[in-house]
Amino acid sequence: MNIRVQKFGGTSLGSPERIRHVARLIKNSKEETKDAFVVVVSAMGHTTDELINLAKQVSSVRNSREMDMLLATGEQVSIALLTMALHELGLKAISLTGFQAKIKAEQVYSKARILEIETEKIKDYLKNDYIVIVAGFQGITENTEIVTLGRGGSDTTAVALASALNAKVCDIYTDVDGVYTADPRVVPNARKLKEISYDEMLELASLGAQVLHPRAVECASYYDTIIHVRSSFKNEIGTFVKGVNELEVKNSVSGVALDKNQVKIALLEVPDIPGMAGKLFTSIADKGYAVDMIIQSVHGKETNDIAFTVSRDDFEEVEKIAKQVALEIGAKGVIIDENVAKVSIVGAGMVGRPGVAATMFNVLGEAGINIQMISTSEIKISCIVDLEKSELATRVIHEAFIEEKSLQAV
Amino acid sequence: MNIRVQKFGGTSLGSPERIRHVARLIKNSKEETKDAFVVVVSAMGHTTDELINLAKQVSSVRNSREMDMLLATGEQVSIALLTMALHELGLKAISLTGFQAKIKAEQVYSKARILEIETEKIKDYLKNDYIVIVAGFQGITENTEIVTLGRGGSDTTAVALASALNAKVCDIYTDVDGVYTADPRVVPNARKLKEISYDEMLELASLGAQVLHPRAVECASYYDTIIHVRSSFKNEIGTFVKGVNELEVKNSVSGVALDKNQVKIALLEVPDIPGMAGKLFTSIADKGYAVDMIIQSVHGKETNDIAFTVSRDDFEEVEKIAKQVALEIGAKGVIIDENVAKVSIVGAGMVGRPGVAATMFNVLGEAGINIQMISTSEIKISCIVDLEKSELATRVIHEAFIEEKSLQAV
Repeated sequence: MNIRVQKFGGTSLGSPERIRHVARLIKNSKEETKDAFVVVVSAMGHTTDELINLAKQVSSVRNSREMDMLLATGEQVSIALLTMALHELGLKAISLTGFQAKIKAEQVYSKARILEIETEKIKDYLKNDYIVIVAGFQGITENTEIVTLGRGGSDTTAVALASALNAKVCDIYTDVDGVYTADPRVVPNARKLKEISYDEMLELASLGAQVLHPRAVECASYYDTIIHVRSSFKNEIGTFVKGVNELEVKNSVSGVALDKNQVKIALLEVPDIPGMAGKLFTSIADKGYAVDMIIQSVHGKETNDIAFTVSRDDFEEVEKIAKQVALEIGAKGVIIDENVAKVSIVGAGMVGRPGVAATMFNVLGEAGINIQMISTSEIKISCIVDLEKSELATRVIHEAFIEEKSLQAV
Repeated sequence: MNIRVQKFGGTSLGSPERIRHVARLIKNSKEETKDAFVVVVSAMGHTTDELINLAKQVSSVRNSREMDMLLATGEQVSIALLTMALHELGLKAISLTGFQAKIKAEQVYSKARILEIETEKIKDYLKNDYIVIVAGFQGITENTEIVTLGRGGSDTTAVALASALNAKVCDIYTDVDGVYTADPRVVPNARKLKEISYDEMLELASLGAQVLHPRAVECASYYDTIIHVRSSFKNEIGTFVKGVNELEVKNSVSGVALDKNQVKIALLEVPDIPGMAGKLFTSIADKGYAVDMIIQSVHGKETNDIAFTVSRDDFEEVEKIAKQVALEIGAKGVIIDENVAKVSIVGAGMVGRPGVAATMFNVLGEAGINIQMISTSEIKISCIVDLEKSELATRVIHEAFIEEKSLQAV
């Protein structure tokens, strides 16, 4: 039995008409492939927002267990409706909630991780020629508590199911038609990638290309499940996300990402005594905030400046912590710069090609763009630049690494 | 531990404001009584209708398993929201779905019966001072299938929980303030009953007084659980439904019910051969339709007329069956009369007082109302009369049995 897992997001299921459209897509895929189908769905369109709004009207107290109880209903509505739409087309189909599909998760409300999926029941239905429709985003704990998997949770459900069922491909249907070399709204010449490695996708996902949730990619990478990101509105091949060894071509740069959701915080003239930086970043981490880039620069003989970036959502809280710590360790002051953005290039073929970083810096320099901070990994180079110049930065980098190369390659 | 079960219907939970109001009611009850509280809720306001409407837009095929999957989300939303509203008031509360509360039911979609409730989990929460909020209307089968209990299912959930938990009283909060001697829209002098027996309530419930679902009353009767029907909008005592031996006064007539949802079907000149009536009513029952009143009258020497009533919803289907059977058994024809209604008097004290029936017939005769069919039970007498005169019939009967008596009694 060849099993195929497909996932449809909230936009694809946003209305009764769209649900019927998705049912037809599944019918077509099934007739084409003759595979056994498991379909994972999100809540319809704005359902989750509406439920959150109801909760706010009822209570100012936020209880994550009850929020999970509330939000899990969204996917349950979707599975029932999509199953009915498949019945309408004369197909055998059955819906399963997270607990019925035995998607076992840890007891961490609102951001649980999937521990295990017992697939006997699903396989039984598949053997009897049912299309099995599973509620995404939710799991059940040992103690029969309903937990949700956090943002992008349905992607994770789909990939975890594909892995548990040994499906070779997991189709993630969404409202974009694949993974692009850059955001087409910023870079008009951006083009759709035919394939990308898990690691590249992870870097792009974390960098704000909101196509796939990082945990879904991690899970696919771990089990070597190929993800096919494609549009539910266009009938064309999207982008395959797979192992680096299975890529046809390893691009030195696969994509350029722009993240405007960054704020820079700098502590000035921190006494040059061991443990100062540790104290600062422990205080921030203890409150649950993530720091992205960090730079420490020598200021004078006895003091350093420490600069770092955090998410725009967190910066006011982090600013308070930084000011408190600055006082305690005797730093001269704290400076906030909201006028920054992060431009990154990502490529699995970057390893062992030192010229890539140099080219990036040169390109930015030639365009008159000042680099404030730099961080690198095996397959990524990120620069903090002025917010106003960040879209220009993205375009010139894309031109240098992707458009020129594609001219040569094609 | 003194346990109290309360049930709130969809109207009482129809908006965020009303949910907050219900939370305050529960808080007040808890502070007054110091009891442990289990609260059963229905879906908010028109949620169920909206979900059914969504289903219709998606599919013309009606699958009861998937409808149950869909509709069960309504109560799950309610339990989460009410629990949040209780948190807002500083109370400890936790929500449980049907499967979490271990409400085990038979696998009959859309009208399952509760088989058993395992109460350990609920009791544990109660011991830890939690108010436990349970989703009504839904149960879980041995095979972890989600089933619903049919119309009025939340009442049944509440009473079954009260029975399983040995609660002495089950408060059913609704949008009326109790059980009345007649429908106040028809009989302006109708008054609220202080108490009524299970059997009387059952007759009234079946007769269309839509206060309590018959299965809830049956369940309460079996376990001797007292039901208190009361308004969630007025803070006053409603009507207690209890065992006939616990009534303070046994009224010969407790209430007058009017049921306009009846249609009369008559087969004319049925050959007087044994088995004819059996053939007719077996054919109807086999299709799942319930017949209410039946009269067989001698027409001539060799033929009888057979008349019966069915629910207005069913009559077109039943008419087809009757015409088919009429053809087979050689009856002369089938007549339909939609212009009828059923007026009934119900009273636990009616037993052994033959004068009651005679008085009813006299009162109707004096008002110029013709009686077309009669049926009686231990505690009920029903007459089919002209639809146009049925409200008048209700009023004159109410006047004769209830208003005159109350003048004497008070």
